[in-house]
Amino acid sequence: MKVAIADVERAAAIVAGHVARTPTFPAPALSALTGAEVFVKYENMQATGAFKDRGAIVRLASLTEAEKRRGVIAMSAGNHAQAVALHARRMGVPATIVMPAPSPIVKVEKTRGYGARVILHGETLAECETRVRELIAAEGLVAVHPFDDPHVIAGQGTATLEMLEDAPDLDALIVPVGGGGLIAGAAIVARARRPSMQVIGAEARLYPSFWNALGQGDLPIGGPTLAEGIAVKNVGVLTLEIVRALVDRIILVDEPQLETAVSAFATLQRTMAEGAGAAGLAALLAEPRAFAGKRVGLILSGGNIDARLLAAVMVRELERGGRIVHIRVTAPDRPGLLGVITSTIGENGGNILEVSHRRLMLDVPAKGVSVDISMETQGLAHTQDILHALARHGLASRRLGRSGESEPAFA
Amino acid sequence: MKVAIADVERAAAIVAGHVARTPTFPAPALSALTGAEVFVKYENMQATGAFKDRGAIVRLASLTEAEKRRGVIAMSAGNHAQAVALHARRMGVPATIVMPAPSPIVKVEKTRGYGARVILHGETLAECETRVRELIAAEGLVAVHPFDDPHVIAGQGTATLEMLEDAPDLDALIVPVGGGGLIAGAAIVARARRPSMQVIGAEARLYPSFWNALGQGDLPIGGPTLAEGIAVKNVGVLTLEIVRALVDRIILVDEPQLETAVSAFATLQRTMAEGAGAAGLAALLAEPRAFAGKRVGLILSGGNIDARLLAAVMVRELERGGRIVHIRVTAPDRPGLLGVITSTIGENGGNILEVSHRRLMLDVPAKGVSVDISMETQGLAHTQDILHALARHGLASRRLGRSGESEPAFA
Repeated sequence: MKVAIADVERAAAIVAGHVARTPTFPAPALSALTGAEVFVKYENMQATGAFKDRGAIVRLASLTEAEKRRGVIAMSAGNHAQAVALHARRMGVPATIVMPAPSPIVKVEKTRGYGARVILHGETLAECETRVRELIAAEGLVAVHPFDDPHVIAGQGTATLEMLEDAPDLDALIVPVGGGGLIAGAAIVARARRPSMQVIGAEARLYPSFWNALGQGDLPIGGPTLAEGIAVKNVGVLTLEIVRALVDRIILVDEPQLETAVSAFATLQRTMAEGAGAAGLAALLAEPRAFAGKRVGLILSGGNIDARLLAAVMVRELERGGRIVHIRVTAPDRPGLLGVITSTIGENGGNILEVSHRRLMLDVPAKGVSVDISMETQGLAHTQDILHALARHGLASRRLGRSGESEPAFA
Repeated sequence: MKVAIADVERAAAIVAGHVARTPTFPAPALSALTGAEVFVKYENMQATGAFKDRGAIVRLASLTEAEKRRGVIAMSAGNHAQAVALHARRMGVPATIVMPAPSPIVKVEKTRGYGARVILHGETLAECETRVRELIAAEGLVAVHPFDDPHVIAGQGTATLEMLEDAPDLDALIVPVGGGGLIAGAAIVARARRPSMQVIGAEARLYPSFWNALGQGDLPIGGPTLAEGIAVKNVGVLTLEIVRALVDRIILVDEPQLETAVSAFATLQRTMAEGAGAAGLAALLAEPRAFAGKRVGLILSGGNIDARLLAAVMVRELERGGRIVHIRVTAPDRPGLLGVITSTIGENGGNILEVSHRRLMLDVPAKGVSVDISMETQGLAHTQDILHALARHGLASRRLGRSGESEPAFA
């Protein structure tokens, strides 16, 4: 094994003072939700909002003076880019970050804000790779790999080292898996410090790269996922070796589980998790029986989620829980009809969010009218009460599908 | 003074192990936003999501055995209710919580979930008070006041004690002010441990109770505020005495500042603040010059904000920042018009969220059509680019007011 516990201990000394010593707290509300006894390590409280600072610092510290002068290069549109840029600047190392051209402006600006040279190239990370190779050849830059590097793996392991200091008697640790850097570090620490603890990876079902690489299946890889931070097509050579040897198993999580997990962190724990950061909780939701009553640690690995996306996810969860419902009332047109409908809803405690009043639709009788209403209720039973109240006024109504049901989770 | 630093030190021993030792971290993104060097103490990581656990525990621990058997009563629809209920159950003390009848179901259920007897009574907290007095007379219950109690003040002081351990060299500490329990405790600690540090209260402009009580004005009190956790009409006798003697000054914060602060905590710090919890940051936004370059501590006092409300606040902030805009395109009707409009927007990088196509409005020429579009852009300059692109296709368009502009911040 190319990374040992001693490497992680050395990494801990290197990152000390340069990363936040993030807390681990019991999460009783998540325990109630999942049936496990849940502990969360808040890596979303790092300066860049994710654990990636740890590995980046250790890799940067490993450079020779000559390499530091030439500078580093990384390929990322996400948390790795910001971690490399931030700590390279602090250490006086020039940093170049190559991102796909369609990267969100806000991420480009944030990375530039950390003083990095940002090069936008191609449509995908794969196309970036060519440009990275050119720059390495032309300028002698040193690549900082996001996961397949012993320094990076040792650095990421420091998160688990800290977590076991704060919660020493966990039965299981569930870690989000993309390229495998975080879980490889976690497994090395776990095997040395708490061999009885299960180490489990949470991988997006749309990107089952480790699942496939470990021979558990041959599932298709790709598609739009809420967990873009772990949407990795090719696992690392080093990380695969470590995961194969030391990780107990992988749990695949689907998009609704990721959405529920992101929303649960926000509403129950008052903290923001990006999709990848919530993957561990999603795995608990995917297999609640496997962890019932067990002390389970989750690494909330990152919190960089777009505000509008988080808002959309939370509203969709309210819809799933029946707290936001869409109904259609169809009736013969008559003066004052809209007033009767809306006041009946209001008197019965529904909070109207949107009204769309239609007279011209083909599915409405020529002399009829159809009113679509979105409203907030206390849940499914309350919604039924409101529909019954409408019926008592002679108004036929039915629930419509959730808005956005057939759309992907992000816009 | 009825509360001394020794009382807070005793309180620290009482709460130890029963509250989370919440972290204090530098917040570089909030520093960039405000110009101060900002440090945040995350009291929203307490089990109940707010600092109220501290005072409740110390007050409950002060009860005689006979009082513990009779049980306690508190009047609150918010964080105090949950703190009393949770810790009374842990200590085997029966708890009764009186809430106004229209309290949100979710808060009633959460408090019941902690094992408390919840009594819904009247429309307001003032009406609850009568019922509380009846129950005290009839059942011998002991009242746990939310702020005007030396045990409660000493308990709340422990937050500042911890914060000064983690960030010992602050120039100023800004504390949300409702009834004054948190700031009274903070001021006692500050004067004993770091006399040079300014202690400043952040009070909602709609509830300027301390502002008025300290003789700074005679402003009207009342109205719907995002910071309902500090919407207190009458200050405490004890808390006023301490605030008058030890607090440097009060800053009033208005609703847009509270909204910006809630949104900034979510998007920049990846953490949820309720309106009251974000009041300290709102005060920094209200008076940036007063704190430029200074080391300023903020107590993020609570994070219990409804998911839909947070989503609405974040979307409104995106609208304020020009990232979500509403435009109206008016043109003579012609086949394919909607396609031209939407593809022009798409080709120029706008992300369409909603389209409303109108032919029947009176303000549209009889042969004209009006299309209202809500779209996501990269900001105001990008929006202008899109409007110019529409103009090049002969389409007149204008920006509409922000949706919800004239509505209050909560639905």
